[in-house]
Amino acid sequence: MRRLESYVAGCWHRPAANGRALLDAATGETVAELSPVAADPAAAVAHGRDVGGPALREMTFHQRAARLRDVAKMLLAEETKERLYDLSYCTGATRSDSWIDIDGGAGVLMSYAGRARRELPNSNVVVDGATEPLSRDDSFSAVHVLTSRAGVEVQINAFNFPVWGMLEKFAPAFLAGVPSIVKPAAETAYLAEAAVRLMIESELLPEGALQLVCASPAELSTLLDSLSGADSIAFTGSASVGAALRSHRAVAEAAVRLNVEADSLNAAVLAPDAGPDSAEFGVFVAETVREMTVKAGQKCTAIRRALVPRQHLDAAAQALVAALGDVAVGDPRDPDSDMGPLVSLAQRSEVQASVAALLQGAEPLFEGSVRSGDDGVGAFLAPTLLRATDPWAETVHTVEAFGPVATLVPYAGITEATELVAAGGGSLVASLYGADRDDMAALALGIASHHGRVLMADASAAAASTGHGSPLPMLVHGGPGRSGGGQEMGGMRGVFGHMQRSAVQGSPDMLTAVTGEHIAGSRANRHKGHPFKLTFDELEVGDSITTESRTVTKADIDAFAESTGDKFYAHTDEAAAARSPIFGGIVAHGYLVLSFAAGLFVWPDEGPVLANYGIDRLRFAKPTYPGDVIHVVLTCKRKTQLDGRGYGEVAWDTRVINQNGEVNAAYDVLTMVANTPGRNGAPT
Amino acid sequence: MRRLESYVAGCWHRPAANGRALLDAATGETVAELSPVAADPAAAVAHGRDVGGPALREMTFHQRAARLRDVAKMLLAEETKERLYDLSYCTGATRSDSWIDIDGGAGVLMSYAGRARRELPNSNVVVDGATEPLSRDDSFSAVHVLTSRAGVEVQINAFNFPVWGMLEKFAPAFLAGVPSIVKPAAETAYLAEAAVRLMIESELLPEGALQLVCASPAELSTLLDSLSGADSIAFTGSASVGAALRSHRAVAEAAVRLNVEADSLNAAVLAPDAGPDSAEFGVFVAETVREMTVKAGQKCTAIRRALVPRQHLDAAAQALVAALGDVAVGDPRDPDSDMGPLVSLAQRSEVQASVAALLQGAEPLFEGSVRSGDDGVGAFLAPTLLRATDPWAETVHTVEAFGPVATLVPYAGITEATELVAAGGGSLVASLYGADRDDMAALALGIASHHGRVLMADASAAAASTGHGSPLPMLVHGGPGRSGGGQEMGGMRGVFGHMQRSAVQGSPDMLTAVTGEHIAGSRANRHKGHPFKLTFDELEVGDSITTESRTVTKADIDAFAESTGDKFYAHTDEAAAARSPIFGGIVAHGYLVLSFAAGLFVWPDEGPVLANYGIDRLRFAKPTYPGDVIHVVLTCKRKTQLDGRGYGEVAWDTRVINQNGEVNAAYDVLTMVANTPGRNGAPT
Repeated sequence: MRRLESYVAGCWHRPAANGRALLDAATGETVAELSPVAADPAAAVAHGRDVGGPALREMTFHQRAARLRDVAKMLLAEETKERLYDLSYCTGATRSDSWIDIDGGAGVLMSYAGRARRELPNSNVVVDGATEPLSRDDSFSAVHVLTSRAGVEVQINAFNFPVWGMLEKFAPAFLAGVPSIVKPAAETAYLAEAAVRLMIESELLPEGALQLVCASPAELSTLLDSLSGADSIAFTGSASVGAALRSHRAVAEAAVRLNVEADSLNAAVLAPDAGPDSAEFGVFVAETVREMTVKAGQKCTAIRRALVPRQHLDAAAQALVAALGDVAVGDPRDPDSDMGPLVSLAQRSEVQASVAALLQGAEPLFEGSVRSGDDGVGAFLAPTLLRATDPWAETVHTVEAFGPVATLVPYAGITEATELVAAGGGSLVASLYGADRDDMAALALGIASHHGRVLMADASAAAASTGHGSPLPMLVHGGPGRSGGGQEMGGMRGVFGHMQRSAVQGSPDMLTAVTGEHIAGSRANRHKGHPFKLTFDELEVGDSITTESRTVTKADIDAFAESTGDKFYAHTDEAAAARSPIFGGIVAHGYLVLSFAAGLFVWPDEGPVLANYGIDRLRFAKPTYPGDVIHVVLTCKRKTQLDGRGYGEVAWDTRVINQNGEVNAAYDVLTMVANTPGRNGAPT
Repeated sequence: MRRLESYVAGCWHRPAANGRALLDAATGETVAELSPVAADPAAAVAHGRDVGGPALREMTFHQRAARLRDVAKMLLAEETKERLYDLSYCTGATRSDSWIDIDGGAGVLMSYAGRARRELPNSNVVVDGATEPLSRDDSFSAVHVLTSRAGVEVQINAFNFPVWGMLEKFAPAFLAGVPSIVKPAAETAYLAEAAVRLMIESELLPEGALQLVCASPAELSTLLDSLSGADSIAFTGSASVGAALRSHRAVAEAAVRLNVEADSLNAAVLAPDAGPDSAEFGVFVAETVREMTVKAGQKCTAIRRALVPRQHLDAAAQALVAALGDVAVGDPRDPDSDMGPLVSLAQRSEVQASVAALLQGAEPLFEGSVRSGDDGVGAFLAPTLLRATDPWAETVHTVEAFGPVATLVPYAGITEATELVAAGGGSLVASLYGADRDDMAALALGIASHHGRVLMADASAAAASTGHGSPLPMLVHGGPGRSGGGQEMGGMRGVFGHMQRSAVQGSPDMLTAVTGEHIAGSRANRHKGHPFKLTFDELEVGDSITTESRTVTKADIDAFAESTGDKFYAHTDEAAAARSPIFGGIVAHGYLVLSFAAGLFVWPDEGPVLANYGIDRLRFAKPTYPGDVIHVVLTCKRKTQLDGRGYGEVAWDTRVINQNGEVNAAYDVLTMVANTPGRNGAPT
């Protein structure tokens, strides 16, 4: 018998005693046993803080990203993956359900790895937002920085996606430099344990960055008792457990941050214009059936309430019933099954009780049957479609049946539709089906503040749509109110959520020392010659050049107008230019100023600067008039090493300054700069 | 006798019964009476939701900002202000203490008003971050939007800054479109009531946007019971009340968002290099004394722990004792008083009890005396400086004496200093005093994740520094752990914290309809002629032009190199350019491409487009080679009306495209565009 182990403080701990049998959802056979943890759960917290955290914080964002990518590749390797799929069938998941969990989970790691390398610096401090000058003479300024919290994150996961649910929380925490302690849901803990075992055995992660505690509620509470204000808890599950966690001593008294994603009565809304003949009607029916049956409806994002215009209620009911009739419910290992069983008999009882509660305000429209594989011991439950007898019946908007169950709700008009959606008290996601842009925008803006995600499904987007029920790593996942008030993923937002934002005030030199970026007003180094002659490795933030000067003449402006064809009156027509309150006379083209500036600061010969790939935040602060004498101050502002590519990205603070010391234009020039030959993969 | 009233549901409610007497901190005379609220506190929630919220959400960010500015001006008017100052003296505040509270509070409104007009669109939806393309053919994308939550914010304020503490919470909520319900602290409720009365009587705010509930704890609990997931609570006060709020049914079960700012054992750290002769030593001493005595030390940001290198302990003690000896404690109305009394006798007893607790791990170094105005009934307490007998004594890092009390703590080395600071369990702010940039950066990065703000004070920043204890509206205020885990202000971050972030997925056309901004892939209108000929009012998002084409010749590149002086080898040296793996041959200057693009898209005559003031996010996606034929697609992306100025800002999505349909460069061109004559203040 497989007895689930915990991975705490660098070792796998095998429980001595037998425990609770975890049964195959379809066959009723025992898959594994869950027993008391053989280690002190609080030891995981200490180990994460003392070993995992310091190891992670030594790595840069890009180094952490590379590890995530390697873990994803390992999990996606054919033989690895099939081991997980075999266990996933035991949870009741079909092959396509398992793909969402396993490949989807690895995909989150891959997505985060790629984005972190593109969007984060190759260091371990993030500068958040613009520099705030706090004095007129640039002697005192502020920046906001994000730094890794010196704590751990405890994941308390739901049973439905044991791999994805773990990895979507793990990826942003790991990138942020925060170790994770995973507490899987009992029902499917064997699959989470198998995935963690693969990750630990791969030795791709620093020790202490990932631990597993297959804990009972009492053991979990002990673990939480050892948390403090630098730690966090991420919970996915029921509202009642969420409420208990909010009142837990750790959260209430020690101010441990808690991210909750809970019950959610997600809605789909057929827009008023989407009649039975419209393409959007078909998309609505297909999506509702899909959301009812994928993972047997055991998804926190599944459609629970399907709102349709009153006049289309019968047509919608008919179409949904027909489509549900085609769903084959059966053994998840059977490729012909569209839908497997629920995770357990207990879960089935809960769903059946919820359906009974829903029937206080609804009547059954369709109840399917189980086609294959049900020998009486599996947790099979056929799809169930209800129709609200009163659109405002309370149970319809408050009772979540966490299975293949949805309720059709008629509405009259956009306003009632938005109010009915809001009656869910806050949801993870809602989807809207229609082609009329005004109606769709009114619906979307009417419900947005009650949701973490809104899908607008018109026919033009249908082919490419990722669907109502799929959270994506670059989009936020989590909603307000009943759905918990949490926020996960959302690209780098999810990483930053694990870091502390601090305002740092001081002289620009001090801020440069803290951030590693050149802050306006900070000291510049002018003794090393033209900085374009320095390799990425030789170049330091603050290296700077003040160029020669150049007079901008009327003849230059005339010639530029002629050669470029830009004959805007302010550059060409004395009388018209004089009438402009902004210019008051002929001015040079902004593009002329930029071009002349490049002529002043570019070092012409072959050298480390490979290319100028862009410009950020350019502002023309003051017009340049004929006769003005301009020069440029160019300063290395930010360096981002691109590991192994032979070059890095360098942003240059660029200021074009006139004879009076006034800034004509300020911008960041973005370049690729080669490493010293032989370093970082640069050719020798 | 003045009996405090509540402003609920559009009326002032005068309690029938007498209540608790609120005494002048210095004279002991009764200032006002606090009695049970004469209205149902929950009615304030319903009124805020049903009246205030809808009225606010109808206004744009810029319209809300204009109201804030007007309220600030009203509060700062001489006669208004003096009424508040008169009451402020009763709280024990000196004139300069009152300036922080009253002028400082109005200053927060002013700062938010200015920033909102510069940084937010003139609409009521914020697009958060970049568009996420989710398909290869641009048929399905996502954006994140921020929309106003359809709830209220309940402020539960501290006694120390009854005006500032209210306004710094009110400003971002108001801008976000969320009504505020203010529950002032009992001790100084008369000053909060007076400020709210001025704001209501000014009729500058939409009805329901601001309500006042002078509630007892039981009444407050009733009010909180009526909150739901769209509402929020902002609390400033003790950790124990913070913990009770976290466990309150509203927060634990209804998922009401709670922002806590609680006890904080803020530290000042004299860096190892800052010996007694250094300028930074002097700054450290002055700042510590200032933070002990401003508002009689009753500031959540005050310095409670002063860390000094062991070798400088005696010198620091001596200097601090000398400086504290010069502090004149007395009647706050006396201009010669440096420091007034505490807010109440009860508060003084609490501080005295805390000092007694601190003395378990510390010994007294200095206890001052009260010079004037103490007739035995005032809550006077002289400044008290302690010295830790053991730097790690628990009480030193856990007991907050909320008065003019600080403890000197010796340390040995940077590592111990950061650990001692962190032993405070999370603070609002820490300040560092030293000149050595490496030491200062190590200290700052070592403690940042335990703080919401870090001040680095070297001599060069001293003159302009806003000081350890001053939260600023553009910087975040709030820290982790013991300090509550909340976050206030921080510029627009504070506004966004009141809004729901939602990912919206759909076709670009749908996303354009929702955001009001042109999303890549969305339909363009080409039937209205050149969009530069349209006034701001005529122009619509999506208006677009596809320009004529132009061939970029080798001669163009040669001439451009000659005229600008930009002779980078990739533009001028065939052999060297051929060696470049990026270019593989001569390419046009990026600035040439931009200049030619302007030549293609600019409409030359006088017209509504007044100026091009900048460029954002420019990327050269592909080199332009001699012989390439380029054209430009220019599309109106975003419009920001600037109220009353006669023009607005327009961002143009600009793409330079070659003969193969490939994008050479993509960027946003930023312009000022005039309104139709006579509209929005435009000359007729």
